[in-house]
Amino acid sequence: MSASNRRWRVAAMPSGQLESSHFDLETADRPEVPDGKVMCRVLWISIDAAQRAWFQGATYRAAIQVGDTMPAFSIGQVIESRCDDFAPGDIVTGHLGWQDYAVVDPHDLKRLVHKRPLSNHLSVLGITGLTAYFGLLDVGQAKPGETVVVSGAAGATGTLVGQIAKLHGCRVVGICGSPEKQKWLTSELGFDAAVNYRDDAFRKALKEACPKGIDVYFDNVGGVTLDTALGAMAYRGRVVCCGVVSQYDTSTPVRGARGVPGVLIIKSITMRGFLYTDYAERFDEGLQALQGWLDDGSLTVTEDILEGLEKAPEGLIGVLNGSNVGKRMIHVADPS
Amino acid sequence: MSASNRRWRVAAMPSGQLESSHFDLETADRPEVPDGKVMCRVLWISIDAAQRAWFQGATYRAAIQVGDTMPAFSIGQVIESRCDDFAPGDIVTGHLGWQDYAVVDPHDLKRLVHKRPLSNHLSVLGITGLTAYFGLLDVGQAKPGETVVVSGAAGATGTLVGQIAKLHGCRVVGICGSPEKQKWLTSELGFDAAVNYRDDAFRKALKEACPKGIDVYFDNVGGVTLDTALGAMAYRGRVVCCGVVSQYDTSTPVRGARGVPGVLIIKSITMRGFLYTDYAERFDEGLQALQGWLDDGSLTVTEDILEGLEKAPEGLIGVLNGSNVGKRMIHVADPS
Repeated sequence: MSASNRRWRVAAMPSGQLESSHFDLETADRPEVPDGKVMCRVLWISIDAAQRAWFQGATYRAAIQVGDTMPAFSIGQVIESRCDDFAPGDIVTGHLGWQDYAVVDPHDLKRLVHKRPLSNHLSVLGITGLTAYFGLLDVGQAKPGETVVVSGAAGATGTLVGQIAKLHGCRVVGICGSPEKQKWLTSELGFDAAVNYRDDAFRKALKEACPKGIDVYFDNVGGVTLDTALGAMAYRGRVVCCGVVSQYDTSTPVRGARGVPGVLIIKSITMRGFLYTDYAERFDEGLQALQGWLDDGSLTVTEDILEGLEKAPEGLIGVLNGSNVGKRMIHVADPS
Repeated sequence: MSASNRRWRVAAMPSGQLESSHFDLETADRPEVPDGKVMCRVLWISIDAAQRAWFQGATYRAAIQVGDTMPAFSIGQVIESRCDDFAPGDIVTGHLGWQDYAVVDPHDLKRLVHKRPLSNHLSVLGITGLTAYFGLLDVGQAKPGETVVVSGAAGATGTLVGQIAKLHGCRVVGICGSPEKQKWLTSELGFDAAVNYRDDAFRKALKEACPKGIDVYFDNVGGVTLDTALGAMAYRGRVVCCGVVSQYDTSTPVRGARGVPGVLIIKSITMRGFLYTDYAERFDEGLQALQGWLDDGSLTVTEDILEGLEKAPEGLIGVLNGSNVGKRMIHVADPS
């Protein structure tokens, strides 16, 4: 094991679209582990569109600054511990960043007990799965027989939202960005229909796919897609505000959904934003349900894995362009 | 009783702000009452900012057209009946319009059994009261100890929302448009604070009046006031979308609230639109509560009454300018 550490350092703040030049891959000596801390080998790095949003300013976390190691949720293995809570060999999750080794406070780590492949804990059994589960069923209050529409349908959260909605007895329509994804959603994931937001006839196609209106719109993208869906909602429909991917890769996001608040009043619509952490007390319930569907084969896991730490910037840029299918992540190393 | 009828006819569609010239007061013979219909003497006419919105296009009702009698919810008295459901002398509510006499279908009328002044049935015991009651307590889920902010605070709905919130044990902050209204809200209606949206320091004043953030924002106005309130919400706050008065008196309404959906996600905020008719099955509950507060003197009734049918256009124009205090209505005639 080398005594050096590679880390992706934020070299410049993006003013428009994110590019590789905004990151530097820096190699330095691994730091010492101070008393009370832990050093982890990074194994898997989660790549999420929201990471681009962290450049836009403080949100539920502080804004990214030049010089920072690019932050990211990850799976790691403890290789040195100077605290009582963790021992070398432990598999953990936490914000370890885009790097080979991270020295962290043990309070920021969670021990991972796993039966399935580690990668699943960044997808269906991780933040993504919990977001889809609680977002659809609790925030969105989806009921059997209702029409559920999800945008970013071929992405990490969207693939799970659509499948869970089908398992729940809903009619499911996916919104995605290519004919290939449309076909894949209906033929492989069991969606009832899929429409392409890049098509000129998108608005019409969405309405035709939802003849009774949209009961639950699970929104991962915001922007024009949200505006269009708002125009197709059913009376007492619910909009689950989960992400705004269309507005992340810019320094001048469009702020404001057309028709809000007027259309909400006319159709008695609820729009509700959430973070998966709102459901911290119910994580076990969510994980148990997801695990059950995995065990009986009713949920297809879609992971989009890039090999090697050096792929992190292009991995994120790709997610912002919609080039991924399912949950994107970086495989950095295997546990010892 | 004269055999003629005066009616305010829509003479032209407003392209900008509403003016008296958009209406003509026309005098014609009273129509015959066809079989199965009823003729009512109009007694009280409700004046609501939403009436201006009806010019902007179809909403929960068809758009207004040139030549229409200006529509309005009203209280009337049956003077001739050619159906079994109503008899001369009955006091009723329904959409009778800006006129002296209306010939209507009995299915569009509701018999009014009243103990209090008739005017109260257009304010606290009518649509306005039900809107405030269900909007605050059910849509907004206001809890004792929470901070409730209401815009259009000195208006028909706002005066009731603020008072009900105080009765419910909330801290109440009103948003209004003049120092006189600010003073009136705190000294006469018991609001804890009032801020003026026309002040340069409005944003700062609102934040200072809500040191823990806004738990429930009851929005009657939309526009910049909504944008500002969204920026001051507490975690898990609720925005009750009731009206968009700031955007009614124009043919080019601003469509879109800044920060939606991003700010909803970051703070787990719910925005929910509604119409009082959503609660049709619970009207009795609402009316009983409102009646109780009236009986024990804990609710102040604020009615802004203009005398005579000829005042209808200026009454509506005034509401759009915020010149009313409390519920504006037109007194046309007394029951026989």
